[in-house]
Amino acid sequence: MHVRIVGTGLIGASLGIALSRKGFRVSLLDPSPTAMRLARDLGAGELASDVAEKPDVVVVGAPPDVAADVISAELTRWPEAFVTDVASVKGAVADAVRAAGGDLARYVGSHPMAGRERSGAMAARGDLFEGRAWVIVPTARSLPAAVDAVREIARAVGSAVSVMQAHEHDAAVAVVSHVPQLAASLVASRLRDLSDPAVALAGQGLRDVTRIAASDPRLWTQILAGNAAAVRDVLRELRTDLDEVITALDALDTADGVGALEVVNRAIGNGNVGHARIPGKHGAAPTAYAVVVVVVPDRPGALGQLFTDMGEAGVNLEDLHLEHGLGQPFGLAEVSVVPGSAEHLRRALDERGWRVHD
Amino acid sequence: MHVRIVGTGLIGASLGIALSRKGFRVSLLDPSPTAMRLARDLGAGELASDVAEKPDVVVVGAPPDVAADVISAELTRWPEAFVTDVASVKGAVADAVRAAGGDLARYVGSHPMAGRERSGAMAARGDLFEGRAWVIVPTARSLPAAVDAVREIARAVGSAVSVMQAHEHDAAVAVVSHVPQLAASLVASRLRDLSDPAVALAGQGLRDVTRIAASDPRLWTQILAGNAAAVRDVLRELRTDLDEVITALDALDTADGVGALEVVNRAIGNGNVGHARIPGKHGAAPTAYAVVVVVVPDRPGALGQLFTDMGEAGVNLEDLHLEHGLGQPFGLAEVSVVPGSAEHLRRALDERGWRVHD
Repeated sequence: MHVRIVGTGLIGASLGIALSRKGFRVSLLDPSPTAMRLARDLGAGELASDVAEKPDVVVVGAPPDVAADVISAELTRWPEAFVTDVASVKGAVADAVRAAGGDLARYVGSHPMAGRERSGAMAARGDLFEGRAWVIVPTARSLPAAVDAVREIARAVGSAVSVMQAHEHDAAVAVVSHVPQLAASLVASRLRDLSDPAVALAGQGLRDVTRIAASDPRLWTQILAGNAAAVRDVLRELRTDLDEVITALDALDTADGVGALEVVNRAIGNGNVGHARIPGKHGAAPTAYAVVVVVVPDRPGALGQLFTDMGEAGVNLEDLHLEHGLGQPFGLAEVSVVPGSAEHLRRALDERGWRVHD
Repeated sequence: MHVRIVGTGLIGASLGIALSRKGFRVSLLDPSPTAMRLARDLGAGELASDVAEKPDVVVVGAPPDVAADVISAELTRWPEAFVTDVASVKGAVADAVRAAGGDLARYVGSHPMAGRERSGAMAARGDLFEGRAWVIVPTARSLPAAVDAVREIARAVGSAVSVMQAHEHDAAVAVVSHVPQLAASLVASRLRDLSDPAVALAGQGLRDVTRIAASDPRLWTQILAGNAAAVRDVLRELRTDLDEVITALDALDTADGVGALEVVNRAIGNGNVGHARIPGKHGAAPTAYAVVVVVVPDRPGALGQLFTDMGEAGVNLEDLHLEHGLGQPFGLAEVSVVPGSAEHLRRALDERGWRVHD
């Protein structure tokens, strides 16, 4: 199969590398000759100008706000090729292709849910899609053969494929991705004017909640604008809950708190229920791992030594979380293992001189 | 120094264990005889009924909503002892002690910023306070000697001590702890009614933002109610920003988006600025570590083998983050090291057959 990739940024270049390794023929085009040649040098494929054959599938890796124009142009230029794109919002892109008179039978939307903090071909990785979700979003008129071709590409690069309608996809990513991004940004915003001693009280909870607040404003503005209606609807639900909590805290502050505790309790409890729905590792149901906590002194090599000792204990580690202390030279490593292995790991580490807790 | 601990839950019992190890004399009291004896058996100290000497310092480890009553009773019972407590809100507790006519000269508030997902003496750990912040919150009338005594205790158990006024403390934890908790809960709440295919699109960002949404509703209701005014004030600021974003997304959806992109861009950009203020490991300024990314196959022992190989490479690891794939048998380990060590680690792992990226 010959895949033409138009737009060799992070996603386009990574896809080219992954497909080339799998034996696909890949041709590359980008408005920036530098980005295009960089992608080629990274092994993403051949320059489009060097390839005479017509493509079987065109993958448009352009930013969300220009994706529809590029898709329409490619549908016109290659009247026998299937065309897909990788924008993270799907309804707005399909609407724009339809409005431009594009052949929707040969167009299928894609959303490979892979990304990095960095962008551009320089950050490309051939394994970017391995183990990630890849949502295929057909239009009402997409040919089954077009869906099959895109599925073949997604599977070839190691993604877990699912098929959704555009409105389902956009509503889902509003909840699982776009609103969490905004919430993290709004919480982090509150730190701007805090005093240094106050910021110094930051713990692991704040770090986790705000990690993605470091994301690129330009990219996220495009994503949020492209999914404006769905994101707004979820934000309105969130605001309703927020208003209830603010009213309840007001009532508690003014000592007239009848029913207010119940509102606060329900807000946290509902969060428990929602959190429990997040799938565990590899899309499976959450597993109750046993956690072994190890004290890590902050001297060169201490964490490496711990890893060596854990490796020698022969236990399969399922997850690991490091908690850093504040102003003191050590931290805690929380090691998740299947419950049956916990006791063995504890004993093994204890024998090697580690301070272990459960 | 003889420290009397009233309330032998997670914090009280852990403090008893830590102080006993440091040679303090510790006596224990709890309304639950079972909890009290469990704490003794864990090495937290002697039962108060077995100790004839008067305490020098009383540490009240009662829940936030009863802390003030217990503090007042202990101030009355031991007219020469200093009394502190460990509740995570300070203004409301001090106000209640004052209202009850307690001797504020001998009272000093404390907030050891240590906790676990689990509660009770059974979860106690002697190292719970190591490397954590411990905020001392004197009243306007607290004696310097009272502050010094509490500081001695906090330092003995390895905490990093800071001193704040109650209103400063409560405003700070509202921003760095209480509002992030509520935001995580409200975002997670949105997942309750999502379809299974939609929840399956959850990525690492959502997992991070909502990790603390699994926290105990009962405890958090007490904490939020105890700091109602400060939390409400921060939530109102957050709601102002949220309203602006909702209005902007509305404008973008109805195609009349003049200035709306700027509002969205600023919301994400302000999050960048706030996030950059969070201190790095050990309270130091954030360090720009180099990140080495390693592909981990999901076979028994693979992660352990990686740890062994990293240990043998002799590089001091600063942080480690595991990213789990969805529906595919592998994950990515993101290993942070000081920039000068990255190339060596990459080479060493590459030589041992790992697939390494930067």
